[in-house]
Amino acid sequence: MQIASIYDPIQQDLQKVGENLRSLSKTDLIPADDLLAHALGGMGKGVRPALTLLSGKFYHYDLDLLLPMATAVELLHIATLVHDDTIDGAALRRSKPTVSSIWGKETALIVGDYLFATSADLVSTTESVLAMRLFARTLMVISAGELQQNFSAYRPGLTRPEYYRRIQHKTASLFAMACETGALLSQAPASACQAMRDYGNHLGMGFQIVDDILDFIGDRSELGKPVGNDLIQGTVTLPAIIFGEMYPGNDYVKHALESKGNPDKVKRAVEAIAASAAIKKAYDLALDECRQARESLSGMPPNPCRQPLETLTEYVVDRNR
Amino acid sequence: MQIASIYDPIQQDLQKVGENLRSLSKTDLIPADDLLAHALGGMGKGVRPALTLLSGKFYHYDLDLLLPMATAVELLHIATLVHDDTIDGAALRRSKPTVSSIWGKETALIVGDYLFATSADLVSTTESVLAMRLFARTLMVISAGELQQNFSAYRPGLTRPEYYRRIQHKTASLFAMACETGALLSQAPASACQAMRDYGNHLGMGFQIVDDILDFIGDRSELGKPVGNDLIQGTVTLPAIIFGEMYPGNDYVKHALESKGNPDKVKRAVEAIAASAAIKKAYDLALDECRQARESLSGMPPNPCRQPLETLTEYVVDRNR
Repeated sequence: MQIASIYDPIQQDLQKVGENLRSLSKTDLIPADDLLAHALGGMGKGVRPALTLLSGKFYHYDLDLLLPMATAVELLHIATLVHDDTIDGAALRRSKPTVSSIWGKETALIVGDYLFATSADLVSTTESVLAMRLFARTLMVISAGELQQNFSAYRPGLTRPEYYRRIQHKTASLFAMACETGALLSQAPASACQAMRDYGNHLGMGFQIVDDILDFIGDRSELGKPVGNDLIQGTVTLPAIIFGEMYPGNDYVKHALESKGNPDKVKRAVEAIAASAAIKKAYDLALDECRQARESLSGMPPNPCRQPLETLTEYVVDRNR
Repeated sequence: MQIASIYDPIQQDLQKVGENLRSLSKTDLIPADDLLAHALGGMGKGVRPALTLLSGKFYHYDLDLLLPMATAVELLHIATLVHDDTIDGAALRRSKPTVSSIWGKETALIVGDYLFATSADLVSTTESVLAMRLFARTLMVISAGELQQNFSAYRPGLTRPEYYRRIQHKTASLFAMACETGALLSQAPASACQAMRDYGNHLGMGFQIVDDILDFIGDRSELGKPVGNDLIQGTVTLPAIIFGEMYPGNDYVKHALESKGNPDKVKRAVEAIAASAAIKKAYDLALDECRQARESLSGMPPNPCRQPLETLTEYVVDRNR
């Protein structure tokens, strides 16, 4: 399945998001074009801004509002990645060196702050108080999710509800906001805004579960980071939780965590989990989130943009599968 | 001079800002009351929220708008301090251990993000798009100032214009925003909003210059951090710049910077600068900023709140003198 066909209705506008991002690296405020250009250059697939644009297609598609909003959504995502990588001491992101690995953690911290502020400034150009509030609350929730992850690092015994809560905060909240603001800024009625929020939330849950699965079974070059990176960082995810439920006597995950990411112990845990039925069970849960995402669309008008959003729920699970 | 008399017209409301801040530590989002309570507990003198409240006294003083705004202003300040201390590896702030020294740099980074988001959320409750935009732009400018400071750390040869630009970004921009939003949210006309912005900007410049002087001549217990802390961190400030202009052959500052904060070399530079006429010259420049701040008030209605704002310009220079 190609992402290009899903993006078809908004492909040109998504390119403008990329151009917008790159143009933000030119500023009198910061004497470091190269640094900002590096941070802003790699949009990846742009799923989040695509969601804002696609969600804006059901009612009054106003690019003057949707373009800054979509750009702000991706920028908020980039800012959280810059801070994430600073916390994790990550060397690579999307196969490129991270800001913190090139310019140092102190600089990366400030650059992240600057990008957060820039994204808030972009949202303010929509002049929508509600969009601004959703934006601020989403950043609160994302930070809370980060903090939960930070506090539970290297601790075995994470439960499914704790995991669901964390990925809702860390990932799904931004997907939900991306969709809801797209609807909101295209004058969708309140019920449609809620439907798109639900869609984004479930899609984000499915997306993150698959991301967490790929950390066990993915290809290093495609992931752009080492396999088993989550366990190395002490982050327990759904496949490990299910594996623990299936084999309560097995200590591989516990040992990997206790060793604080010892490569041999992580490798043993990753291989055991990857070869187990925990992967299939985790996929089933991701599929269920994507089914719920599709159901959320049922209340939306049956216009040509519903199909790409439905297809996206399949793409999210099938990528790299 | 007592700050209490200056705060007289808004003393009760300023206390509510403190209560608001403390109440923000109770949240379902973050399972760490003690951490947030620690970060939110020490408002200090509350100059910035006091400015918002006092600036709101000229026209329609609406506490429903001014209280969240004043709280957001202080919260933004607290968030920047949390990140500053994380970057500097500072052990103490206002004589209390910093968040990063107790909970670690990673946690402090995320807590700062959460506080930024919370302050943006508070501003959104005013439903003023302009206040939200001023808020976002101020955070952009503050981060830019931080980055300038970061890039110029341990480099001798900083010029006065570079110093002025940096403290305008790092400090004065927030004072200006605190005053402008106070005026804006009390339905002041545009000219009064600009006048209060100018007042805050000059006051902030004077405040920071005095802060930078106190780093040379202050008392460790009153500062709540070591004397000479700026030079230890590699930050060149106005007294050192003026000293360099007066004694171009003297290498004390250069040596202190080259040593990356060697205590003996910093001590020698600090003592030489503290004993020199550079201190008096720097004070004169602070006084000049405060004079310009008072002049900015001339266009404001002659109501009882002008006097406290005028007195504040004297207090800023006289504190700890």
